[in-house]
Amino acid sequence: MLKIGLLGLGTVGTGVLEVLEQNRAKIERRAGGPLRVARALVRDPARHSGKPVELTTRAADVLEDPDIQIVVEVMGGLEPARSYMLEALGRGKAVVTANKEAVAEAGSELFAAAERGRSDLFFEASVAGGIPIIHALKESLAANRITEVLGIVNGTTNYILSQMSLKGREFAEALAEAQAKGYAEADPTADVEGHDAARKLAILASIAFEARVKPEHVPTQGIAGITQRDIRYARELGYAVKLLALAREEEGELEAGVYPALLPSEHPLSAVHDAFNAIFLRGDACGEAMFYGRGAGAHPTASAVLGDVVDAARHLRMGGRAVACTCYHPLHRKARGTTPRRHYLRLILEDRPGVLAQVARAFGDQGVSLTTVLQKAMVGELAEVVFLTHLASDVRIEAALGALSKLASVGAVGNWLRIEGERG
Amino acid sequence: MLKIGLLGLGTVGTGVLEVLEQNRAKIERRAGGPLRVARALVRDPARHSGKPVELTTRAADVLEDPDIQIVVEVMGGLEPARSYMLEALGRGKAVVTANKEAVAEAGSELFAAAERGRSDLFFEASVAGGIPIIHALKESLAANRITEVLGIVNGTTNYILSQMSLKGREFAEALAEAQAKGYAEADPTADVEGHDAARKLAILASIAFEARVKPEHVPTQGIAGITQRDIRYARELGYAVKLLALAREEEGELEAGVYPALLPSEHPLSAVHDAFNAIFLRGDACGEAMFYGRGAGAHPTASAVLGDVVDAARHLRMGGRAVACTCYHPLHRKARGTTPRRHYLRLILEDRPGVLAQVARAFGDQGVSLTTVLQKAMVGELAEVVFLTHLASDVRIEAALGALSKLASVGAVGNWLRIEGERG
Repeated sequence: MLKIGLLGLGTVGTGVLEVLEQNRAKIERRAGGPLRVARALVRDPARHSGKPVELTTRAADVLEDPDIQIVVEVMGGLEPARSYMLEALGRGKAVVTANKEAVAEAGSELFAAAERGRSDLFFEASVAGGIPIIHALKESLAANRITEVLGIVNGTTNYILSQMSLKGREFAEALAEAQAKGYAEADPTADVEGHDAARKLAILASIAFEARVKPEHVPTQGIAGITQRDIRYARELGYAVKLLALAREEEGELEAGVYPALLPSEHPLSAVHDAFNAIFLRGDACGEAMFYGRGAGAHPTASAVLGDVVDAARHLRMGGRAVACTCYHPLHRKARGTTPRRHYLRLILEDRPGVLAQVARAFGDQGVSLTTVLQKAMVGELAEVVFLTHLASDVRIEAALGALSKLASVGAVGNWLRIEGERG
Repeated sequence: MLKIGLLGLGTVGTGVLEVLEQNRAKIERRAGGPLRVARALVRDPARHSGKPVELTTRAADVLEDPDIQIVVEVMGGLEPARSYMLEALGRGKAVVTANKEAVAEAGSELFAAAERGRSDLFFEASVAGGIPIIHALKESLAANRITEVLGIVNGTTNYILSQMSLKGREFAEALAEAQAKGYAEADPTADVEGHDAARKLAILASIAFEARVKPEHVPTQGIAGITQRDIRYARELGYAVKLLALAREEEGELEAGVYPALLPSEHPLSAVHDAFNAIFLRGDACGEAMFYGRGAGAHPTASAVLGDVVDAARHLRMGGRAVACTCYHPLHRKARGTTPRRHYLRLILEDRPGVLAQVARAFGDQGVSLTTVLQKAMVGELAEVVFLTHLASDVRIEAALGALSKLASVGAVGNWLRIEGERG
């Protein structure tokens, strides 16, 4: 009988209890024998009466109990989760965590503690919920040099963008719907501004590229500036608008970022709707691959946690270790804004002869050439015009927009979005 | 230094050597130390001169060498691959195989030998090439009761159907193109008739449903009967036509089959084009998930083989065992043709008043009601009419078609395809 201690008994912790009860026979067969959740750390025991587990309010009852060999951390937040995990690992307990913040911010400390304690640290549930992407990157795809990771790793923003695309909503309406459905929190900042996605990308990129990427290395732009018009125009041009978490290595330099971008509608990520998540990647041996599923929710997250518990239990019973920290290399970051790619720009211009020539010249002066120019609608006296560019770096586009903003004929820059995922 | 013996040095074996050379540092870090391919069994050494490996024509030089601890079987076919693997496992060597035929036909024997030898059997590459679906089903998703597996697991037929859909080709033309591109063999029977997919489904279903499913348990229908018209009409109705490998459990009974079916165009599998593979599944904890990638080819397959080699090497170095045979339950097969689902029928009918009433009555007599009736085109004097039904079992449709074939007003049954993947 292997004993498990739970740190936290919120949505995910309760989900872990439920799924373990529901599929106990199968889980124990794969884990090589019986499992029992011996104790759960909670703040307010009264809120959890009736749950089939012994409750405690003292962390030491879980961390210092020598009978508890697997600690499942599902409390979230950096502290005290980080300290508790360090303690458990130091005492030689296996730790399974769903905590993206702690793994992204304190991954190297946690792995060092696991090394000292000769224990295992698992964190499948910290990224993309029920999708087994961490194991895939650490082990199944170990033979690949990964060159690109493109993720839709935030369900809230993908739900909002899907509603805007499929139902014609504006951002504010779609956000309100997401809140009503429980997909977005009352304060949606971490999701909408891309910070949640940046943490998950830091974890994915650290494994994929074997270098410590931290959230502060990930420039982040949210989706609040996306309008119904941008989504409609993008679709007319054959693109979907998605909040991408992207990391790419070229010539030893890593580019990472979270931003809304246009993806060709035939790209596999363009078919990822609603609150689903997906991670698309490119390896030099496997080629293109994509992993798709539920990125959040009590039971999908419990599925990932219990998959890790199975691994931890097998190691405790039969020997073996999980792949430890994989950040072998120093991080060489690519200078910001230097990657050539295509861009989408929506400008509000005076509707008279010569204006387009002025605009084209401003782009041309920066070496940016245009592939598509489409006048879409009139905005009062002004014309709304969409431009797609050839490959150009962000700094060139910034410079061109700087010059354009000085022209009397340019009313406003409606939006600027990058284009990603085009082949060849 | 762990020594590897290769059985076979064709496309996949050569791919394994290439990928190991290319990414040796990364692979060895994950594997916990150095790896060396010590020897390869080949039929004709002259054909392999210059390859960076010692060659032998005697299987015993690989199987009986005590220094070789991992045997990689990439020769394909049931025999002698099966006997060689039994021998290696019996001697306590870990075996990594890419051989769907041997695993599908002789899986239980191979696992029994692994049990006796206290050795590991890995077969990630036997299904869906570079996509790590076997590990996902055995370990990462171990906490789930899987209720449905829907796969596109044959790249040849998916390429053919994609060409028919995207380029307007007829089957014969698309097949010829697939042969010219090397996606289809000179004798394409195993792919086109669905036998290759049935073997892969047998492996997937055995793991997903924990019961021994063999290829002979999988009724199989190929794609040679699909016409350009069917694909076009399906698309007009909002569906894609795909060759599905399907297994589904309901009330303890398993239904399995390989057949072409209509999938709603918003289903994630509908966006799987060209020679790509994907496995969509439903688990009671994780919900919907999909794994997408290259299902064949030297390097994608080598990616899977070397992922398994990493696992095998870690177990040999650090202890631990892979999840062994998971076929715990007897197989209860659902009576054929009893599952209710929707259907697509294309009939060639006389174009005169009263005929539609006769046809509707024949369906109605079997309790089959229609949701859609669309007259598409004239075929000479006759009218081509497409029908979509409400939920009905295959046996009801068969009976209705039997009755219809006796009507003078029915010229022919153009096609009958099942509809899968609809929600709710």
